[in-house]
Amino acid sequence: MKKVIYQGARGCFSELAAQKYFGTGIKVYGVKSFEDVFETVWQNHGVIGIIPIENSLSGSIHRNYDLLLAYRYWIIGEIKLKITYNLFTNNGARPAMIKEIWSHPATLDQCRTFFNANPRYEPIAVYDSAGAAKLLREKRKKNAAVIAGPQVEKIYGLRTIEKGIEDSPENYTRFLLVNRKKNIYGGEAAKTTVVFGVQNEPGILFRCLSIFALRNIDLTKLESRPNVGRPWEYLFYIDFKGSIKEERCQRALEDLNENLAFVRCLGSYETREDK
Amino acid sequence: MKKVIYQGARGCFSELAAQKYFGTGIKVYGVKSFEDVFETVWQNHGVIGIIPIENSLSGSIHRNYDLLLAYRYWIIGEIKLKITYNLFTNNGARPAMIKEIWSHPATLDQCRTFFNANPRYEPIAVYDSAGAAKLLREKRKKNAAVIAGPQVEKIYGLRTIEKGIEDSPENYTRFLLVNRKKNIYGGEAAKTTVVFGVQNEPGILFRCLSIFALRNIDLTKLESRPNVGRPWEYLFYIDFKGSIKEERCQRALEDLNENLAFVRCLGSYETREDK
Repeated sequence: MKKVIYQGARGCFSELAAQKYFGTGIKVYGVKSFEDVFETVWQNHGVIGIIPIENSLSGSIHRNYDLLLAYRYWIIGEIKLKITYNLFTNNGARPAMIKEIWSHPATLDQCRTFFNANPRYEPIAVYDSAGAAKLLREKRKKNAAVIAGPQVEKIYGLRTIEKGIEDSPENYTRFLLVNRKKNIYGGEAAKTTVVFGVQNEPGILFRCLSIFALRNIDLTKLESRPNVGRPWEYLFYIDFKGSIKEERCQRALEDLNENLAFVRCLGSYETREDK
Repeated sequence: MKKVIYQGARGCFSELAAQKYFGTGIKVYGVKSFEDVFETVWQNHGVIGIIPIENSLSGSIHRNYDLLLAYRYWIIGEIKLKITYNLFTNNGARPAMIKEIWSHPATLDQCRTFFNANPRYEPIAVYDSAGAAKLLREKRKKNAAVIAGPQVEKIYGLRTIEKGIEDSPENYTRFLLVNRKKNIYGGEAAKTTVVFGVQNEPGILFRCLSIFALRNIDLTKLESRPNVGRPWEYLFYIDFKGSIKEERCQRALEDLNENLAFVRCLGSYETREDK
């Protein structure tokens, strides 16, 4: 049975993403930090890690880009998940009793309209939204509520008292599946991620992108990160449609290698969308 | 006398950056958050804000990119500062008495070698390094030390017990000066920042960069941010050498405008380096 490691408590969106990608028939384990996810995958051959890499409102999770490179892992899959937030209490708590609302600061930030409409609720920042749901249940508190994903209702036996309280309906997160072992996907929905370092040289990024434009390869994302130890030089992470099993993508990589000192392919993988 | 607003306590690097840029003869004021910096500049005509925008080790401060756009401010200057960290105690405290070391989590993270060599010190994360120096002094604590910039020694009357304890000597931060009023600089060390939004269209970024390549305009930085409300579409922030007072830069902007629905120049400004 496949083992998948995620960061967070039971009921977080990373756990849900793993279940949506693989369906039933996997074992999922939560750990405390993204570093722990990478470290667990390192220590246990065959274990797959799942990490959020980008949210459509707040942007990339840059720490995970850095960890992907440091651990030399392969990306073996991607899933996009719609993020929606509900408000939960313990059974028996009445809405009028609620004073505090617990959630992760980023989640609280994405529910501003709700707090403006309900000024008597005090938002309380906690480390982890699903973890707050767990705590709420354990302490059987009646004067607090939690904002988290719909999945915590069943897991912790909580009561949903308001649905979809996020500000923006266009809230999606992309998750990546990572593994120590190379596993190149060549099917139709393939996507490839490449990281390369560029020196401080006029026009260098333009020339790199020309390699893809020449072959009509469609870039879906470009992210820059500092090249540590070389101030104001950058690593670029590029996602494009296609697999390095295709000749045109393989040749694009060769062209990059011909022109740059550092190029690494992080994987060609299947992308899935939760319907 | 010029008034400059920064985020942090007295003795933080933003305050130092303001003083290095303008020299003496300015009044500096610290506020609690980056949002407060932008809000104060909004409320008080003529006041200049200073914000960190990029560190050579940890990358861009993305929140400030978002705020720059939201407030429609102009960038009117840039300064690069070398970041170095010392260890401070109160006078009369002996190193053997130290149990805890207080600093901002990012600062603690940049002094890992020091903590590995001194395992008996417990790192304690605080909101603000300069603020921790202030607190250490106020409480006259003898069993704690603080990691902060060299400038806190004089400001809070602390004793420097170890110098340059950061892991990497290549630690620099770029700060931007922002104002409500447009002030285009046309001198030699000019740099320009432009933000534009691209649709999900193959080759679009390549075509945008060709506008600059065509004119040998040297891009020094490219940062992508999510275009909120349009999942997986992006805003790109580009820095390039030159001023929009120059015809070639002006024409590059016109070409961008011809091809894209959203383009905004955030300013042409002088860049300074602290020697």
